[in-house]
Amino acid sequence: MSATLDIAVVGATGTLGRALLEVLGDSRFPVGKLYPLASERAAAEGDTVTFRRHDLSVGDAEGFDFAKVQLVLLAVPAALADGLAADATEAGAAVLDLSAAQRHNPALVLADLNGNGPAAGQRVVCPDGLSLALATLLDGLAPAGVEMADITALLPVSAHGRAAMDELAGQTTALFNLSETTTQVFDRRMAFNLLPASLAEHQRQHADISRLLGSPAVGISLNLATAPLFFGATLALTLRGSAVSLDAVRTVWAANTLIRLEDDAAALSPADAASRPDLTVAGLQQQGSQLCAWVAFDPVRWAALHALRLSARTLAALHQPA
Amino acid sequence: MSATLDIAVVGATGTLGRALLEVLGDSRFPVGKLYPLASERAAAEGDTVTFRRHDLSVGDAEGFDFAKVQLVLLAVPAALADGLAADATEAGAAVLDLSAAQRHNPALVLADLNGNGPAAGQRVVCPDGLSLALATLLDGLAPAGVEMADITALLPVSAHGRAAMDELAGQTTALFNLSETTTQVFDRRMAFNLLPASLAEHQRQHADISRLLGSPAVGISLNLATAPLFFGATLALTLRGSAVSLDAVRTVWAANTLIRLEDDAAALSPADAASRPDLTVAGLQQQGSQLCAWVAFDPVRWAALHALRLSARTLAALHQPA
Repeated sequence: MSATLDIAVVGATGTLGRALLEVLGDSRFPVGKLYPLASERAAAEGDTVTFRRHDLSVGDAEGFDFAKVQLVLLAVPAALADGLAADATEAGAAVLDLSAAQRHNPALVLADLNGNGPAAGQRVVCPDGLSLALATLLDGLAPAGVEMADITALLPVSAHGRAAMDELAGQTTALFNLSETTTQVFDRRMAFNLLPASLAEHQRQHADISRLLGSPAVGISLNLATAPLFFGATLALTLRGSAVSLDAVRTVWAANTLIRLEDDAAALSPADAASRPDLTVAGLQQQGSQLCAWVAFDPVRWAALHALRLSARTLAALHQPA
Repeated sequence: MSATLDIAVVGATGTLGRALLEVLGDSRFPVGKLYPLASERAAAEGDTVTFRRHDLSVGDAEGFDFAKVQLVLLAVPAALADGLAADATEAGAAVLDLSAAQRHNPALVLADLNGNGPAAGQRVVCPDGLSLALATLLDGLAPAGVEMADITALLPVSAHGRAAMDELAGQTTALFNLSETTTQVFDRRMAFNLLPASLAEHQRQHADISRLLGSPAVGISLNLATAPLFFGATLALTLRGSAVSLDAVRTVWAANTLIRLEDDAAALSPADAASRPDLTVAGLQQQGSQLCAWVAFDPVRWAALHALRLSARTLAALHQPA
């Protein structure tokens, strides 16, 4: 048995599915057979996706025999996730679930950022890109004196899927043509606007992130909104603590290979974040007794890269000598 | 002498100048003669502006005899402000300067939000719209237990003038036509992006706002960026203090006629802020030991409305019985 994995990417035509195929394709991950799957409708339309320079036709997730693969990357809407995950685990596949369906479930969600990938017949739920990025940023900051992080997170429309991207593009074009804009994914105009999340969404995301960060750790307060960006999120970060130190925080971040430090906030560009594998932290400065900084990263790409790292752990575990 | 003022609006073709003409026109302010002025180039092009349903041609600010008016509203680029203000005050006019030229000058800047308008032959500098809105929001919060406000301010391109609006529109169109984008006002692409201010701009704005808030008052930390919005700014606000109280803050804001409270953050829309005379505060909630809220307002309109209130005080002072 050679050290490769046969993989199904379910939801291969969505923004997250495409990002998974891209980061997996760009990596040296030993993929055996790759099955891009989608809902019946997408598959029936004869969609194809590209993986390592090959065009692959997208299969129907509903009728798929998951016994064909060892690993399933599930990037589907929450409503479809539980059923597909059950099919896949019953067939003996390891399931890495990137959907929102079970993110509230402590038994399934990864206990921490460096958790193992799923084992055969097991389902593990991956946090979303924003939670993952914050966990990376705040990791190791408690020993540096940080007690609280106030976060204003501005997400791109791609974090809401392809339909949201189409809606922003359509509304923008309509406004320039002086025609009426239509809304479907968002409940009001998204183009040249900024839409804060609802109170319920604020609370859900706050709980998800707090659970991921664990305890004792840095506490967070969160302001969450969608900005009229296609790719790339921006965070405004304020760090506090009775003994918070600019030098100590800079040292922790400089030692983290996933973080790129820029002196001036003006160097930040979320539009460029989608093409980068790291988080950019820019303009870290002291303001009174606290530290402020701007951060850019791509939440969709960030979730996909995390899934790649967990997949590598699944691969290693499956091929461990018994 | 009837209780009217003859007024010159200098910079009448810019975003702020147009907002001044609009709020002045919509008000019952007793305007005698109104002179819209602009730089030689704008005036030579035969520009007209509308004031109370009349089309007025824009005159040349350079050659204008400021003795013709009692009040000058100066909404010009910083480089032109000092010269024009000197001409106008020497001619005996009261000058309300909305430019950035002297905002660092404590002797000229309004000491507080409710200061008097300029007297005859005097120049008074008005804070910018962001500073004014924050002063309104934080007014009275210190007695409600608020010691610190962490602010992430997302400004629209209109806060940078008409050329910035043209740049966003041009870049957006270019991206949809798959052609190259050009940059001039901003140092990188503004369309579908978010550009944090430089460290120097952060510090300047922080100093301006702190000076306006005075002492003792609520301390601030500030993250400042330009978002791809034409009109309307958004603030994410976190309020802290050892005895901060949701009810006390809500009571202060509910009593302020310039503030409109919405329960859910999802009710906020900066794109709609430009058509409203008030500040919208939405989604005020407790998160751990602090309060979070979203705010929307139009900084250009906000500055214009403040200028109108100060103009009314100048009018009252000029017509006071000696």
